[in-house]
Amino acid sequence: MATVRLLADDQLSAEAQAVFADIRATRHTDFINNFWRARANDPAALRRTWEALKAVMGPGAIDPKVKEMLYVAVSIAQGCDYCIHSHTAAARAKGMTEAEHAELVAIVGMAAATNRMVQALGVPVDEAFKVSP
Amino acid sequence: MATVRLLADDQLSAEAQAVFADIRATRHTDFINNFWRARANDPAALRRTWEALKAVMGPGAIDPKVKEMLYVAVSIAQGCDYCIHSHTAAARAKGMTEAEHAELVAIVGMAAATNRMVQALGVPVDEAFKVSP
Amino acid sequence: MATVRLLADDQLSAEAQAVFADIRATRHTDFINNFWRARANDPAALRRTWEALKAVMGPGAIDPKVKEMLYVAVSIAQGCDYCIHSHTAAARAKGMTEAEHAELVAIVGMAAATNRMVQALGVPVDEAFKVSP
Amino acid sequence: MATVRLLADDQLSAEAQAVFADIRATRHTDFINNFWRARANDPAALRRTWEALKAVMGPGAIDPKVKEMLYVAVSIAQGCDYCIHSHTAAARAKGMTEAEHAELVAIVGMAAATNRMVQALGVPVDEAFKVSP
Amino acid sequence: MATVRLLADDQLSAEAQAVFADIRATRHTDFINNFWRARANDPAALRRTWEALKAVMGPGAIDPKVKEMLYVAVSIAQGCDYCIHSHTAAARAKGMTEAEHAELVAIVGMAAATNRMVQALGVPVDEAFKVSP
Amino acid sequence: MATVRLLADDQLSAEAQAVFADIRATRHTDFINNFWRARANDPAALRRTWEALKAVMGPGAIDPKVKEMLYVAVSIAQGCDYCIHSHTAAARAKGMTEAEHAELVAIVGMAAATNRMVQALGVPVDEAFKVSP
Repeated sequence: MATVRLLADDQLSAEAQAVFADIRATRHTDFINNFWRARANDPAALRRTWEALKAVMGPGAIDPKVKEMLYVAVSIAQGCDYCIHSHTAAARAKGMTEAEHAELVAIVGMAAATNRMVQALGVPVDEAFKVSP
Repeated sequence: MATVRLLADDQLSAEAQAVFADIRATRHTDFINNFWRARANDPAALRRTWEALKAVMGPGAIDPKVKEMLYVAVSIAQGCDYCIHSHTAAARAKGMTEAEHAELVAIVGMAAATNRMVQALGVPVDEAFKVSP
Repeated sequence: MATVRLLADDQLSAEAQAVFADIRATRHTDFINNFWRARANDPAALRRTWEALKAVMGPGAIDPKVKEMLYVAVSIAQGCDYCIHSHTAAARAKGMTEAEHAELVAIVGMAAATNRMVQALGVPVDEAFKVSP
Repeated sequence: MATVRLLADDQLSAEAQAVFADIRATRHTDFINNFWRARANDPAALRRTWEALKAVMGPGAIDPKVKEMLYVAVSIAQGCDYCIHSHTAAARAKGMTEAEHAELVAIVGMAAATNRMVQALGVPVDEAFKVSP
Repeated sequence: MATVRLLADDQLSAEAQAVFADIRATRHTDFINNFWRARANDPAALRRTWEALKAVMGPGAIDPKVKEMLYVAVSIAQGCDYCIHSHTAAARAKGMTEAEHAELVAIVGMAAATNRMVQALGVPVDEAFKVSP
Repeated sequence: MATVRLLADDQLSAEAQAVFADIRATRHTDFINNFWRARANDPAALRRTWEALKAVMGPGAIDPKVKEMLYVAVSIAQGCDYCIHSHTAAARAKGMTEAEHAELVAIVGMAAATNRMVQALGVPVDEAFKVSP
């Protein structure tokens, strides 16, 4: 069920082939998941998305495992079933334990609950929390 | 701007007073932010929410700073302005650096973008990502 | 802060004037809230929205007070601050007690939490819950 | 998987039959998609929804193809899988090219990213953007 | 399709077994739906969630059937397919008629529409709707 | 009210200054809106976001005015007040008429309503709408 074709390796443009090669080299696996096969219909966007993802999720101040857990948290809050599955798998591959996953789920649930209670009550932001006026 | 009154300390029920005392003791500060003052109109719910928050956000498998960053990520994705302000302040108080905050914002933006692109394309979940059938 | 002008009574087209007159007659008050003053820039849409609202929120199988409470619940879950304020006021005007409001807030928080936990876990729908295949 | 029955043509009330006939005449096709078959359980709502859709999506200031693309954009941002599929098909039927679809997906992704970054940073609205105070 | 295993009765920890027993006793049925089987991987969270649900959804100021309808409304607005199915079934089990369900769907649609129109127009909250400054 | 400082021109790093210069040159105006002043705290992300925006919103298959209208539609559906204000202003600057704006608001409202009704009813995607299995 998709709104575009999922391209097999032999259906790729040269530009998409190059991006797939870089995904495989970067991730040390031959497996290319469906998101990239769908995105490959627009090779320029495929490249732009992959390059941005590498820049944002690559080495930095935050641990790679934690980066994936943040990605999962956003995906849950936005209700993207595919993204929840793919990034939960990625987080586990980067070392997320079952105990950490369980806590992540609990934190997302807790945040979701207080987010909505705060909005229900229309709570004004405390002055102490504002950095800019 | 709120849909309920924000209760001052001298307007609290005995049960709400006890919860406020525990918040102050747990957080080592006299400051009580507006969410709790709004929630204090329903003392039983105030207690339930506070106890759940302590259980979920207390010591566990995930670092307290990371827990707050996950809370911020969910609050952004759900668009709760108050919660973004309060938990960003809390994450900083627990040691989040400006570099980590900047990366958090970038990850949330990246996840938001791919979430919506995935949904636009209706990408089916890869078998490799499914734990249960 | 708005993306259109909020029209005063003497800035209305004849069609918008007629709709405002019906709002006042239906609600037994001279007060017209800002949503209608913003919507009045498009008189045909103003009429269509008002007529649809009267049809949906008018007498039916569900009690008028409960209808407003459902409206509030959706508005919270979608994060519409204006709508939360206006429909919470409307629900109170139709008899919602403070105890009912407190329970409404708790239910919305509970549902928000389990919604996200369910999505995090990717729980498949039980056969027993499906009406159509 | 649905919460109501999807009605076949021989299960319709007289009012629902009349609406289906108008859908077929308006769209120049015998095909009735599942949304209307689900909505047909409430014939008055079926009529109201169809009439509103005709009014909003009919001839006007915006090109019909662009109207469908806007519909798709909203459906993606709200995460409605059915609506994404049905309105992407409708936009293609009204002339959306694959290049336009690819750009639409990129714009939705870009907007989703900056929406969340803006909310993360709590950016105040510039005075220059406000029409009303 | 799930990110965790759905536990069968003979795969439960002692704590999870006790919670399942309480769910069965409280609901007067042997049936345990998939959400609890997924949540059972984290027995402490299972207990916490179930206890909170009992407290929030138990006897109070709002009728149990209406409580379930509010739960459904939130689940729709947040786009949780599983929750929509499970709580629509629960609301019917507590007496929601088809006429009430039809009105619920119409109210959610109406609220969703005006929520977004209000946000599009950036309508400022009327002073009359504010309880706290 | 923001979670970071809004940087004035004399507080910028050299990299941020260069991006601001390009924004001014590209847009033919000296005005820099608050989003960029907030994002300037992370100069690398500022550059990445601006370059991506130029690529996505620049000349292509879709008319620039329509691109901005799609951006507005997403921003409304995601509830980003700042983005609604800034991109509505941008769309007007690129030629969106008041009649087009009024229709845009109506389409977003209509889509929001049917999105939620579809989700409420759990409507399965018609085979005719699927491009990939």
